[in-house]
Amino acid sequence: MNTISIIGAGGWGTALATLIARNGHSVRLWARRAELADNLDRDRINPLYLPGIQIPRSIVVTSMLPEVATGDVLLFVTPSVSLRRVASELWATSLVRSSTIIISAVKGIEHQSGLRMSEVLSEIFRENPILVLSGPNHAAEVARFIPTATVIGATSEETGERLQRIVSTRSFRAYTSPDIVGVELGGALKNIFAIAAGIADGLGLGENSKAALVTRSLAEMSRLGMALGGRRATFQGLSGAGDLIVTCFSRHSRNRRVGERIGQGERVDAIQHSMQMVAEGVPTARSARDCAKRQSVSTPIIDEVYSILYEDAAPAAAMERLISRSLRPEED
Amino acid sequence: MNTISIIGAGGWGTALATLIARNGHSVRLWARRAELADNLDRDRINPLYLPGIQIPRSIVVTSMLPEVATGDVLLFVTPSVSLRRVASELWATSLVRSSTIIISAVKGIEHQSGLRMSEVLSEIFRENPILVLSGPNHAAEVARFIPTATVIGATSEETGERLQRIVSTRSFRAYTSPDIVGVELGGALKNIFAIAAGIADGLGLGENSKAALVTRSLAEMSRLGMALGGRRATFQGLSGAGDLIVTCFSRHSRNRRVGERIGQGERVDAIQHSMQMVAEGVPTARSARDCAKRQSVSTPIIDEVYSILYEDAAPAAAMERLISRSLRPEED
Repeated sequence: MNTISIIGAGGWGTALATLIARNGHSVRLWARRAELADNLDRDRINPLYLPGIQIPRSIVVTSMLPEVATGDVLLFVTPSVSLRRVASELWATSLVRSSTIIISAVKGIEHQSGLRMSEVLSEIFRENPILVLSGPNHAAEVARFIPTATVIGATSEETGERLQRIVSTRSFRAYTSPDIVGVELGGALKNIFAIAAGIADGLGLGENSKAALVTRSLAEMSRLGMALGGRRATFQGLSGAGDLIVTCFSRHSRNRRVGERIGQGERVDAIQHSMQMVAEGVPTARSARDCAKRQSVSTPIIDEVYSILYEDAAPAAAMERLISRSLRPEED
Repeated sequence: MNTISIIGAGGWGTALATLIARNGHSVRLWARRAELADNLDRDRINPLYLPGIQIPRSIVVTSMLPEVATGDVLLFVTPSVSLRRVASELWATSLVRSSTIIISAVKGIEHQSGLRMSEVLSEIFRENPILVLSGPNHAAEVARFIPTATVIGATSEETGERLQRIVSTRSFRAYTSPDIVGVELGGALKNIFAIAAGIADGLGLGENSKAALVTRSLAEMSRLGMALGGRRATFQGLSGAGDLIVTCFSRHSRNRRVGERIGQGERVDAIQHSMQMVAEGVPTARSARDCAKRQSVSTPIIDEVYSILYEDAAPAAAMERLISRSLRPEED
């Protein structure tokens, strides 16, 4: 039995907390807002982010970082844009031991630095073992014990297997990969392609076009991901292709839904304003585009999503360029 | 301008006929049943197989094989189990020239012989150039000029480009591949995986499980397809991964729908009896399983679909084995 601190009480953080607590571990769940922590503690339900799921009484809910800093494992599930700040505040408590296992379940790439989330964490927790967890994991299904698989990226097999034992249940299978970079990039990049797929849906472009677009998305994810150091096999596996495919077709995906609303004519800022949750594909489109430019990798889908999100490009025209390109052979 | 004979007046045959006629070619459309041919000729609509689409007056509709045997191109779009019989009858007319281009747009593998559809045709038309056409092409979208891409598999670049010119329009992009085997096998095998995905849907197994299952399907399709002579890149492209992915998630797919009804508890024979159209995944599951056995390739998904379709295996138990296996690393 270990003490596991979950940093972030969104849908995925709450689901992981519930899962790990049911696995017999001592779990502390940190929410940034004191009001949310108080409500979760009292009501044992997270109506906004994970409706209908009972949060076990055994989970300690808090908004105080010192209360979670002493865990044997710190599992980060914050929005990507908040990760560095929260991690730095935790470091500043001086309570995090150097043996504490640090895990990122955050899907994103830091703007300007171009760092992956585990790299951001390793700049702050310089001596700690750092792992990642990513896969096609809809939080509500995990919390309902619906069969799910996920991938743990870990350079040390021993640490990877330790985390595997902590999170695995009969319904939640975690397996390990030595390719941290590939596991992490698959989860980050797929959200951009899900926005593109959603725009195609919103514009009513049909299944044949979407098939071409998603096929190109798989190729583009591998191309950029390999240029950034990931392995081809990882992008073809569960945390790459698996997560990309299901997100592009999921009714539950926030990122696909953002795209769909863009395709239906809503303005990006209005959509973001109306959403209670972060659609990680929006910041990731910007940082991934920068990474691609630095590596001189061709990423037409990411570029068009960027131009729609940040340069006010007309979605219909951008998608027409993309579909037209997707209908040509990949070699073009 | 060429005379193109379309052999088979189902949804896809009718859509291709309409497309090619609008492209300025002389098109003859053959329907097996005289009554269907008469109705199509009179009403210029195919209400059962392609509702709502106007069939151009210029298309000659017939049930007489001699009337189509003289075309410059014979494009086969029959059910896979009928292909050998219809092709043999055409051959027996002695009207097919040896210069006539023969194309298979049929998705299947012949039972017992294990032959691909183009191989069946090459046994009958021994001197003719033989090509294949396959891709993620929902017929109703093609007939409505919704942007679509497809792949022409051709060993001769010249013949491939000739067919490309015949079928390509602004909305229908056909590109060529020298890998006939891979193009053809992608289209044939994906229907089996669509049945598996449908069973998961029908059983209500959730998105996380389906993500694992579809990822495994991609790997299994490549593994078997490469053992049978196709190229890896083809299975990762539009006619492989593209067709597989969209079919596994499509509301329109007959094969996914057959699986969904199985998952919901209907009996296989009752489903087949009630369907007006052929779900090619059903015969292909049997022939693909035989091919895999002969090649000693591990195909757990195809095997479970086969056991449900032909050995009365309980779908829930079979899917539980499959999902459980899909949740383990691919190396297992």
